[in-house]
Amino acid sequence: MNQTSARPDPDAVKRALEVLGDRWTFLVLREAFFGIRRYGHFQRNLGIGRNVLAARLSALVEHGLLERVRYRTEPDWYEYRLTQAGLDLFPAILTIKAWADEHLLDPKDSRLHVRHRACGAELIPVVVCERCREPVFATDVEYEAD
Amino acid sequence: MNQTSARPDPDAVKRALEVLGDRWTFLVLREAFFGIRRYGHFQRNLGIGRNVLAARLSALVEHGLLERVRYRTEPDWYEYRLTQAGLDLFPAILTIKAWADEHLLDPKDSRLHVRHRACGAELIPVVVCERCREPVFATDVEYEAD
Repeated sequence: MNQTSARPDPDAVKRALEVLGDRWTFLVLREAFFGIRRYGHFQRNLGIGRNVLAARLSALVEHGLLERVRYRTEPDWYEYRLTQAGLDLFPAILTIKAWADEHLLDPKDSRLHVRHRACGAELIPVVVCERCREPVFATDVEYEAD
Repeated sequence: MNQTSARPDPDAVKRALEVLGDRWTFLVLREAFFGIRRYGHFQRNLGIGRNVLAARLSALVEHGLLERVRYRTEPDWYEYRLTQAGLDLFPAILTIKAWADEHLLDPKDSRLHVRHRACGAELIPVVVCERCREPVFATDVEYEAD
């Protein structure tokens, strides 16, 4: 590792964090992971203004995390479903959540527990290397730009 | 899962994303993961104004991700080292990066490759359940508030 070498440009991670870092966007997405799909349900669960909700749903559709799907006609009614890209984000969100619960949680915060249906345990995420299946530590990597 | 039940308050995740979602904060943190510790090295690698850099380093110290450590006296010189909380964030950042590379990367973006020294492979992170070691999917969990 060369400490003064040119860095790759700020990459897609920064954009991801900017998208997700918006307060309402993150909460809308969290509701989607809870199984919420319909405008009225988002609104009721979040206590969010209609304009704010519509803007955040549109942004999530634009970023490819949700898709707007008609589920009834006459009149047309739509719902918002997680796309594969949205579903793929779940492990990352879960990992950030585990870190935040450990390092940022205020005593006054309520804590959301996630249970892994497959094995029945409270889901504590561990990030492993796909190849060797060992947990990943910051000190055990090297970087190479394209 | 009850779609209309009260939700736990926005939790620590949102704060984490807000902290990390700041453009410069994220880039400063990334340099720290690259092994950078000194003010001048951060400044040179990022091409960042002194006030902006000082503010972001202070914020990262305040949030407990970096610590300011004196490494020389007469005059006193300081460096910024990742704390355990900062190091613990690495797997989460890596997971977000993998998702962003897959779903948000522009063709014009350079891509940063991460190599796992332990096994020599390009590091593709997989999030597994600590208990059963199976990969985690969004559809395989239940939620419970405190």
